[in-house]
Amino acid sequence: MATEGQIITCKAAVAWKANKSLVIEDVQVAPPQAGEVRIKILFTALCHTDAYTWSGKDPEGLFPCILGHEAAGIVESVGEGVTEVQPGDHVIPCYQAECRECKFCKSGKTNLCGKVRSATGVGVMLNDRKSRFSINGKPIYHFMGTSTFSQYTVVHDVSVAKIHPQAPLEKVCLLGCGVPTGLGAVWNTAKVEAGSTVAIFGLGTVGLAVAEGAKTAGASRIIGVDIDSKKYDIAKNFGVTEFVNPKDHDKPIQQVLVDLTDGGVDYSFECIGNVSVMRAALECCHKGWGTSVIVGVAASGQEISTRPFQLVTGRVWKGTAFGGFKSRSQVPWLVEKYMNKEVKVDEYITHTMTLDDINKAFDLMHEGGCLRCVLSLHA
Amino acid sequence: MATEGQIITCKAAVAWKANKSLVIEDVQVAPPQAGEVRIKILFTALCHTDAYTWSGKDPEGLFPCILGHEAAGIVESVGEGVTEVQPGDHVIPCYQAECRECKFCKSGKTNLCGKVRSATGVGVMLNDRKSRFSINGKPIYHFMGTSTFSQYTVVHDVSVAKIHPQAPLEKVCLLGCGVPTGLGAVWNTAKVEAGSTVAIFGLGTVGLAVAEGAKTAGASRIIGVDIDSKKYDIAKNFGVTEFVNPKDHDKPIQQVLVDLTDGGVDYSFECIGNVSVMRAALECCHKGWGTSVIVGVAASGQEISTRPFQLVTGRVWKGTAFGGFKSRSQVPWLVEKYMNKEVKVDEYITHTMTLDDINKAFDLMHEGGCLRCVLSLHA
Repeated sequence: MATEGQIITCKAAVAWKANKSLVIEDVQVAPPQAGEVRIKILFTALCHTDAYTWSGKDPEGLFPCILGHEAAGIVESVGEGVTEVQPGDHVIPCYQAECRECKFCKSGKTNLCGKVRSATGVGVMLNDRKSRFSINGKPIYHFMGTSTFSQYTVVHDVSVAKIHPQAPLEKVCLLGCGVPTGLGAVWNTAKVEAGSTVAIFGLGTVGLAVAEGAKTAGASRIIGVDIDSKKYDIAKNFGVTEFVNPKDHDKPIQQVLVDLTDGGVDYSFECIGNVSVMRAALECCHKGWGTSVIVGVAASGQEISTRPFQLVTGRVWKGTAFGGFKSRSQVPWLVEKYMNKEVKVDEYITHTMTLDDINKAFDLMHEGGCLRCVLSLHA
Repeated sequence: MATEGQIITCKAAVAWKANKSLVIEDVQVAPPQAGEVRIKILFTALCHTDAYTWSGKDPEGLFPCILGHEAAGIVESVGEGVTEVQPGDHVIPCYQAECRECKFCKSGKTNLCGKVRSATGVGVMLNDRKSRFSINGKPIYHFMGTSTFSQYTVVHDVSVAKIHPQAPLEKVCLLGCGVPTGLGAVWNTAKVEAGSTVAIFGLGTVGLAVAEGAKTAGASRIIGVDIDSKKYDIAKNFGVTEFVNPKDHDKPIQQVLVDLTDGGVDYSFECIGNVSVMRAALECCHKGWGTSVIVGVAASGQEISTRPFQLVTGRVWKGTAFGGFKSRSQVPWLVEKYMNKEVKVDEYITHTMTLDDINKAFDLMHEGGCLRCVLSLHA
């Protein structure tokens, strides 16, 4: 390509400061160095983790930065030594890397590859520990190793999932975060069996993906829990069979669920990021075997607690990140499942906009009717 | 037998009030009713749970009562409908029942049989919700469905494990609680694999049984953690390969262990009942897969806590009761493993006494050199 080896100047939404509107800027994107891939991002969605860091509540958040981590695009160029993708490949950048070499990848027990974390955790690239983004020479930090709120981004090659070239990028961008997180929490982390009873706390995109995963796994009862009763109608389409609004009850929600299920659910999922709800999710599980999975991300410094008796009497407390999926290996598989109509994606997209509207898109996230808003970056 | 159908008057150690010395009394033990078994207890050991209830800190503790739950004896008589044991059988009374009929037993997922809990939890027998113990007509509560600090006791038939008639009762009484709890925490709850690294917090009987279980499972490193460094010498005999005394370090013990093990242990076990140590045990586990099992029983009302990030990054928090062993089915198997020298028992017995010395035996429990004290009840 004509741009290979060149700095590309393109549009990106820059978060200059915590909690201040993003600004569409002309950003310089340096060419990929060894082990790096420059991607033309075509579509990106917004996720609550972007909003959390942007809010300034994330103590590891660095500014100025380019947020965004749920996207799809096409490889523009690759750095030295990159063999698994080439220009023109359709890809999903993955905030959770998969190097296949570190002790995490080799363990067979986790998807939490550690290879590039020391760099992505502080907004830079591993090769020279610098950013590839700048504005008139002033560096702009990367975010989660993805920074997809930019027409072009540079990521580590271990963070790039090559997908089917015919997959619609405006849809499958969602397979970069929320939908796999929910599906994988059920399939990989909890391993829900057919006939199980399931409770889901929070019916946003992740919670709905949990419902879909539980339905696919053959769960017999899928109880949605949300303080917005309007969500039940949508949730039914994803597999939720019953709905409980904690506001409709005087008893603690865990007691409501225990009563409703003759002793508690087999599996529960917290998809909000609220530590009190995490406790309720554990305590609504059945004695002897109930397993609760924390999927939501709590604010920094907050703690979960319970009586140890809850665990001694057989409940299990777990968590999941990216649903336990190995990103490079399994995101392409999820894309094909979507193409075979075995996994929903379209149904989560409630809004589409362009990059210029990104601040409006963030406002929408806090409204009940919005699941995912997909931004087109080159419209 | 001559006593069948008769009230038996025998010696028992009665806890009249919380935290007051036990008193050896003549107690009347009523004949077993339907589904009950009267056992001549030959040997009983003392466990910290007895001491905990005796102390008055257990809000469910009822007085006056007859404590004791780690024992062995011979069936004296059986009530109507009891088919699985008969007079003369050698048995271990089990505080955790196994009815094989309730939803817990049938689940295949837990050992926490629920059949008699509503009675044993409040110190009575299920049949008439009354006690079989009395002194001159005044009822004395049962404890944990076992009450083994008595020359004769009455238990539910679902709580009686029939064991090999040649097993030495003065030894295998220990297979009624502490030793199976530790072994089972490793084998059944954590399912430790060969080559794993293990940390054990608290090197009493249960902690040492965890060490033995881990050694049998092929763990490569078994790190004992205790504030009494003298325990290391004994612990080596049970499989502990390294020792850490938290008092020797300025850093939090979880950090000491993470540093010592290149990122954390694969499995940890809390065998004390201290909620701060439970947190440390979780947090010393390896990111991605480390599993922590709560074995110790915390005081009522206390809570465990941690940052949810610990779980979201792949650690698992569990607990165990009676090591997950199905009591009637598996205690006899443990007895045979002991007889085949595949499981230690003798090595935990540091003291032997008679029932008259029971208060002295409780004093010994708080001294470092005592693991298990076995009382002979008919000496």
